[in-house]
Amino acid sequence: MDIATIGGLVISLVLVVFGITFNADPFGFQFDKLVNFIDYPSMLITFGGAFMALFTASKSAKEFLNNLKSFKLALKTLPSNETETITTIIELSNVARKEGLLALEEAANGIEDSFLKKGILLIVDGTDPELVRSIMETELISIEGRHKKTISFWEDLATMGPAWGMIGTLIGLVNMLQQMSDPNSIGPSMAVALITTLYGSLLANWIATPIAMKLKSSNDTEIMTKEVMVEGLLSIQAGENPRVIEEKLKSFLSPAMRDDLMNVEGGELNG
Amino acid sequence: MDIATIGGLVISLVLVVFGITFNADPFGFQFDKLVNFIDYPSMLITFGGAFMALFTASKSAKEFLNNLKSFKLALKTLPSNETETITTIIELSNVARKEGLLALEEAANGIEDSFLKKGILLIVDGTDPELVRSIMETELISIEGRHKKTISFWEDLATMGPAWGMIGTLIGLVNMLQQMSDPNSIGPSMAVALITTLYGSLLANWIATPIAMKLKSSNDTEIMTKEVMVEGLLSIQAGENPRVIEEKLKSFLSPAMRDDLMNVEGGELNG
Amino acid sequence: MDIATIGGLVISLVLVVFGITFNADPFGFQFDKLVNFIDYPSMLITFGGAFMALFTASKSAKEFLNNLKSFKLALKTLPSNETETITTIIELSNVARKEGLLALEEAANGIEDSFLKKGILLIVDGTDPELVRSIMETELISIEGRHKKTISFWEDLATMGPAWGMIGTLIGLVNMLQQMSDPNSIGPSMAVALITTLYGSLLANWIATPIAMKLKSSNDTEIMTKEVMVEGLLSIQAGENPRVIEEKLKSFLSPAMRDDLMNVEGGELNG
Amino acid sequence: MDIATIGGLVISLVLVVFGITFNADPFGFQFDKLVNFIDYPSMLITFGGAFMALFTASKSAKEFLNNLKSFKLALKTLPSNETETITTIIELSNVARKEGLLALEEAANGIEDSFLKKGILLIVDGTDPELVRSIMETELISIEGRHKKTISFWEDLATMGPAWGMIGTLIGLVNMLQQMSDPNSIGPSMAVALITTLYGSLLANWIATPIAMKLKSSNDTEIMTKEVMVEGLLSIQAGENPRVIEEKLKSFLSPAMRDDLMNVEGGELNG
Amino acid sequence: MDIATIGGLVISLVLVVFGITFNADPFGFQFDKLVNFIDYPSMLITFGGAFMALFTASKSAKEFLNNLKSFKLALKTLPSNETETITTIIELSNVARKEGLLALEEAANGIEDSFLKKGILLIVDGTDPELVRSIMETELISIEGRHKKTISFWEDLATMGPAWGMIGTLIGLVNMLQQMSDPNSIGPSMAVALITTLYGSLLANWIATPIAMKLKSSNDTEIMTKEVMVEGLLSIQAGENPRVIEEKLKSFLSPAMRDDLMNVEGGELNG
Repeated sequence: MDIATIGGLVISLVLVVFGITFNADPFGFQFDKLVNFIDYPSMLITFGGAFMALFTASKSAKEFLNNLKSFKLALKTLPSNETETITTIIELSNVARKEGLLALEEAANGIEDSFLKKGILLIVDGTDPELVRSIMETELISIEGRHKKTISFWEDLATMGPAWGMIGTLIGLVNMLQQMSDPNSIGPSMAVALITTLYGSLLANWIATPIAMKLKSSNDTEIMTKEVMVEGLLSIQAGENPRVIEEKLKSFLSPAMRDDLMNVEGGELNG
Repeated sequence: MDIATIGGLVISLVLVVFGITFNADPFGFQFDKLVNFIDYPSMLITFGGAFMALFTASKSAKEFLNNLKSFKLALKTLPSNETETITTIIELSNVARKEGLLALEEAANGIEDSFLKKGILLIVDGTDPELVRSIMETELISIEGRHKKTISFWEDLATMGPAWGMIGTLIGLVNMLQQMSDPNSIGPSMAVALITTLYGSLLANWIATPIAMKLKSSNDTEIMTKEVMVEGLLSIQAGENPRVIEEKLKSFLSPAMRDDLMNVEGGELNG
Repeated sequence: MDIATIGGLVISLVLVVFGITFNADPFGFQFDKLVNFIDYPSMLITFGGAFMALFTASKSAKEFLNNLKSFKLALKTLPSNETETITTIIELSNVARKEGLLALEEAANGIEDSFLKKGILLIVDGTDPELVRSIMETELISIEGRHKKTISFWEDLATMGPAWGMIGTLIGLVNMLQQMSDPNSIGPSMAVALITTLYGSLLANWIATPIAMKLKSSNDTEIMTKEVMVEGLLSIQAGENPRVIEEKLKSFLSPAMRDDLMNVEGGELNG
Repeated sequence: MDIATIGGLVISLVLVVFGITFNADPFGFQFDKLVNFIDYPSMLITFGGAFMALFTASKSAKEFLNNLKSFKLALKTLPSNETETITTIIELSNVARKEGLLALEEAANGIEDSFLKKGILLIVDGTDPELVRSIMETELISIEGRHKKTISFWEDLATMGPAWGMIGTLIGLVNMLQQMSDPNSIGPSMAVALITTLYGSLLANWIATPIAMKLKSSNDTEIMTKEVMVEGLLSIQAGENPRVIEEKLKSFLSPAMRDDLMNVEGGELNG
Repeated sequence: MDIATIGGLVISLVLVVFGITFNADPFGFQFDKLVNFIDYPSMLITFGGAFMALFTASKSAKEFLNNLKSFKLALKTLPSNETETITTIIELSNVARKEGLLALEEAANGIEDSFLKKGILLIVDGTDPELVRSIMETELISIEGRHKKTISFWEDLATMGPAWGMIGTLIGLVNMLQQMSDPNSIGPSMAVALITTLYGSLLANWIATPIAMKLKSSNDTEIMTKEVMVEGLLSIQAGENPRVIEEKLKSFLSPAMRDDLMNVEGGELNG
């Protein structure tokens, strides 16, 4: 469970509510002001328009729904990380060195990551190293391609939100300007017209952009972890020394993560 | 027939009409307000200006019309997809293995995709593998180049729409500011001036940007499908094992698509 | 003579004049309104400022004038195209095959394109194929580099137009706000202030951006045509079969252009 | 201690305070105006919203805090630079030439840079040159990857600041427009509404963008310094002449830095 | 002395002064209006803020001053150009062919360009061709890297100018809105508030952007000239025929420059 993402979303919302209801003089909160900021027709046009623009751009309704579901993905932490992956690969290289490549088949049973598992089975099958690299890199590129489509979905939503917010505001302004007989209604009419712009900004800067940035960062970590796997598996297949493999893979890590790795090793390998 | 694209376009339009006509107090729809949003001279300057900018940028009137026609393309689903392509190629590799490369000629008759067909005929003709790859990759690059021009057309339209909308608004504002004798006319005059900005935004965010995004996504799928074809054909020509070819090509697929592939194979190949 | 570009420029202008002068009620045109949109000092600051920014950025006054002259280039259609080029190269390959590489010298006399001509003469001189490729590709890169500078000129103009339009509007607004004694003059003063913004938008979206897009599209066609030439000439020098050369070069074409090619061949070669 | 960065931040703040408080007529400073520019709820929504958007985008609370801490990094000067690095490498190459590669181990003790130290130890261990290059380049790419994430953090903050400033202004405007009964309160209400936009602009242009630019420039220097190290170490391992190594590494330097290098050498090497 | 850059800067300024002071009715110039456009506190916050943002981003005060000094560089024409360079290299190749590579040392004395001189001396020293290429290309990349930093400085200034102009305007607006007791002061107060936006626009579009574009164009020319030098020197070292070298290097030139080259050669070589 990832606290940063959910926490950030909740605190942002609290800040918006605070900004709407807080009153300095007299000091206090006026929660009835919230009513002015909830306008269902404005929601329909801003959110509806933005999502429908992306629905129009979708290959199928199913793809659109899958992209929406990636929101849940953004809330999760990744199942594996670089440090764990390196520890696993060093263990695998020790197994391979002591008991041979075929012994990796059994070791693969305990591994959850399907990419790493597939790689091990290719090695166990005696696949040509060039083909192993080619298959795993094609898969890496395909995975990144799919991630990028999902990230684009949220980035496009961050563009479409303010765009449809502005369309809503323009509709409201034209309606207001056509019926300016009552000067007292100008203020509230304009307030309602501006609400779609506010909704569009919130859709972009409260939800869509941060989710896109989160998914981008998760993708970077996942791809780097998988690159570590490819390098590690090819080194194991080439029969390289576990010590050399560790040295090679550690280059992917930051100094802090290297300290983590040594602690893990101290506990799991040497302990 | 692709429901997402047409559905998205229609629902967006319904939302705009709803936003214009809905009235909260008294609750109901005022369809006569629609009249305020239909202004033929504003349409002429916004849509006319935006399309004429792209006409100016065209190599010929024919190219401009072809780009416009790509709108229909965006509504269609692609004729082939990755999963089907892989199934076809595995079938072809089985034919080639059992009956030799020349037997592919007959198999090619049943194939609709002209790119795949051309590749098979090159193989049957005994063309050098390097030349096959070179010819097919040049064609791939040319196809993508042509697609990108069409995508640019819609992206440029999404830029030109708001730009000419603003030109219309500026013309309206200058006209209005020069004749401010009657204060009562200011509101409606400004409303009319703003309508071109609204038209420009709708052209960009209701039509042009979603169509560009859809064409981009279709291009990605088509290019990936064709890359699968090139890899598959070269593997067939090299006489690789159908099992290895399947493993190689499956790397292009997402986990969900791999399940589809297995269902298809279960039905078509092993059934 | 290219109708699209000139036609687009003229129709856009007609649309702007229509937008300024058309009156719905009473229905008709008020051509005297045009006077309000012609303001020489505003022209001087907007167009002057934008062009002077690009003059400042120029290596020399001559380079600046050459860039301006590329406007005429944008109105022209290209002298050669892919289909013609392929037909020419196939003819050349037939000549070379039947009469030897030296016979190309005579054939080169009938060719107008100086790039193709230079390539043929290099081959006739017996230049090393690697050197032919290197010389022709360096030239290709240089040509594209020069084209890109010209395209940038128009793109920069499209940025500078609105920027100097806004400078003009800010000057007008400050002047107006300092002398607000007469309320009746506010409207017309503001109208004049806005005119520079209108001029800047027109410079960008009527002229500069479409011209830049046209030049970019011409460059793409020219570079692809020249790539076809390089590939074709090297194939001729390597003594490849005219039939294989045709197959190779046709990969550059769209299906529609291939049909054109066959018609041309039917008429010119087999007729 | 880096004067430019801290100096720039302080002087910018002084300029803002000056802009707020300075009065031309009567000439003097009105520091009580500062009160109008300090609004805690506005701060909460602008700064809170912007930082929470980045918190939402973070992998973990720890990563978010680490990114914030990079602010201190931007104030520091880098521990090593190109000129010093080249001097050190020439010294090392002299040691290696006179006393052999193993003598480098002792020399490594005096070196603070952990990247250079690691490289020396790899050489002393007799690691294969290809592996040395691969390990050091992977590390270089990882370091740059981590730097780029930190730079993105500040760039994203520079986007989110104005975005949340606008959200605050929209909330303020809607609240104001709903309660326009007292015309005298419109001015101050609008002033307060605009303050969030001002805060957002300051967050972006006083802090976030300059810090991002500083970190980018530091990254460029560090990566170039490390590239000099990799080239230098591989040349030492290959047993190249110290004179040739110097010539090679000097290509990385600007003419001014080369003069510095000669002064250092004159003092340290020949003195 | 480059007329375009200085001329462009001066004429732009004249146009701005014209835009401020020209009056259509009564026809004439009102130079006293200039006073309204000179506001020292506004200058301090706009120019001060923009430059301080870049000072914050600088590695050191020295680097900041060096970047400022590049303004003078933008006014200069480049010391060498492609056509001259090619003529020089052909002369050198003739010397090398007739008198041997060692004879180039003397020829190098007459050459001002330090990059070309260094290359000649490397050849005279008998340096390995691969090392010559590596050293010269590293230097080329370093030079371009340094140029790009300077160009970025002016591009960043073009971003920071309007940004700090807007900060100034926001400060002015908040101050004005807080003290709206006297309606007559609103106009002039708003005029003063807008002046920082005008200053920011002028900093960007009169100075910073054109200077950045000029430096970019100078860099392109310098890098291409240096690429010609590298190609030429390596061809001389390889002992290629001066005629072939000329053919190779001429590919870098435009048709017009080739005509210049022939005139120069006619005068200098064959005359």
